[in-house]
Amino acid sequence: MENIKVILQYEGTRYQGWQRQERTENTIQGRLEALLSKMCDKKVELTGSGRTDAGVHALGQVANFHLDTEKTPEEIMEYMNRYLPEDIAVIHAQKVPERFHSRLNAKGKTYVYRVLNSPIPHIFDRRYVYQLVEKLDMEVMQQAAGLLVGTHDFQAFTSAKKGKKSTIRRLDAIEIERIGDEIRFTFRGEGFLYHMVRILTGTILEVGMHKREVAGMKELLAKGIREEAGFLVPAKGLTLVEVRY
Amino acid sequence: MENIKVILQYEGTRYQGWQRQERTENTIQGRLEALLSKMCDKKVELTGSGRTDAGVHALGQVANFHLDTEKTPEEIMEYMNRYLPEDIAVIHAQKVPERFHSRLNAKGKTYVYRVLNSPIPHIFDRRYVYQLVEKLDMEVMQQAAGLLVGTHDFQAFTSAKKGKKSTIRRLDAIEIERIGDEIRFTFRGEGFLYHMVRILTGTILEVGMHKREVAGMKELLAKGIREEAGFLVPAKGLTLVEVRY
Repeated sequence: MENIKVILQYEGTRYQGWQRQERTENTIQGRLEALLSKMCDKKVELTGSGRTDAGVHALGQVANFHLDTEKTPEEIMEYMNRYLPEDIAVIHAQKVPERFHSRLNAKGKTYVYRVLNSPIPHIFDRRYVYQLVEKLDMEVMQQAAGLLVGTHDFQAFTSAKKGKKSTIRRLDAIEIERIGDEIRFTFRGEGFLYHMVRILTGTILEVGMHKREVAGMKELLAKGIREEAGFLVPAKGLTLVEVRY
Repeated sequence: MENIKVILQYEGTRYQGWQRQERTENTIQGRLEALLSKMCDKKVELTGSGRTDAGVHALGQVANFHLDTEKTPEEIMEYMNRYLPEDIAVIHAQKVPERFHSRLNAKGKTYVYRVLNSPIPHIFDRRYVYQLVEKLDMEVMQQAAGLLVGTHDFQAFTSAKKGKKSTIRRLDAIEIERIGDEIRFTFRGEGFLYHMVRILTGTILEVGMHKREVAGMKELLAKGIREEAGFLVPAKGLTLVEVRY
């Protein structure tokens, strides 16, 4: 058996997210598994570095799968790209040690959230940016981001119900840049909770619109109440850029 | 009556080209005229700098129209962007002198043709690039481009039937750059014949694949036979970038 690691790109617009579901074939994992199973003429399971939600994109999602094959990684990649739909692509494939696991071995991830801060639409990026016309104060957004970076309990910044699993995460960096009409949020961390990047972005944007105070970030982290944090920004602005090992 | 000049962006994928047609509303000009006529409650005609074919995109198409209105150009732009489909946008609007005519006053245009020269698809650009996997020799393509620049009879490089209209055009520049996996052709000229940019690109690509000789360009220009020139590259790789006045 070979263990193959692939780096994937996809546009999430058409899909119900990464994770395979019983009721629909319309997930990224489902499409990939169906194709690999056809290639090998037996069921192949694919492990991703983590789920992405419906509508979220990827420039560098990582997955791995075990299979018996005489094909080289390059040939597997070529086969996959020939039959995958046009909004999913394999950009790299390699053999990895038997024990490599895309999710358990992931050391960190980078997500980018793109906001178009202009009344003029950007036709060519419209599926990848969230348009927000309100004026945004960069300085207070940077300050709020600074208070959110670090190891914290991010209970207030997830849509997951409170359970036994830890909601403590290490958030290494939030960079906020203005590139022309676009404001780009880059999040680097060891791992992210369900909806965490999108709620962090929404909360920081509310600070930028002067709808909430910078200092409120500390209280949000301390109290851990989802309803007191900001809005969930739309999925289409979010891209998983990199998974580090 | 005011004369309003607008700069337009559109993704051509869904449309049957720029020009209004009797049988369908699905043209860029048709959509814009319908919207402006609704805004003014009377028929408004829109003049474009020229047609773009079905599937061709624009970053900087220019058009103008005359109308009675108390709205400022900014208000007209805002109104249009509110009601236009998400793949058409107005990025600039201004009042211009009564005599300004988008087509007759145009002094030059710039088109870009984008070729993805890689076996790995680019998911996020897939609607805007033509993927060609064959190895391309940049040096001979540059040489062929050099022979095509200048004032020539481009009869061999148009799909228009031979008629009374002149097929002589001044082509000021063809730049060919490699940007990562992409080869980008930039054409600057005073005006272009029907399909001219796409046939020039196809012909230069055939030189790059060593399927035809650099020196053949001179003969193509001299003989003017369409069948002896290269293939018509797909519309989706082509973008009208700028119209100069």
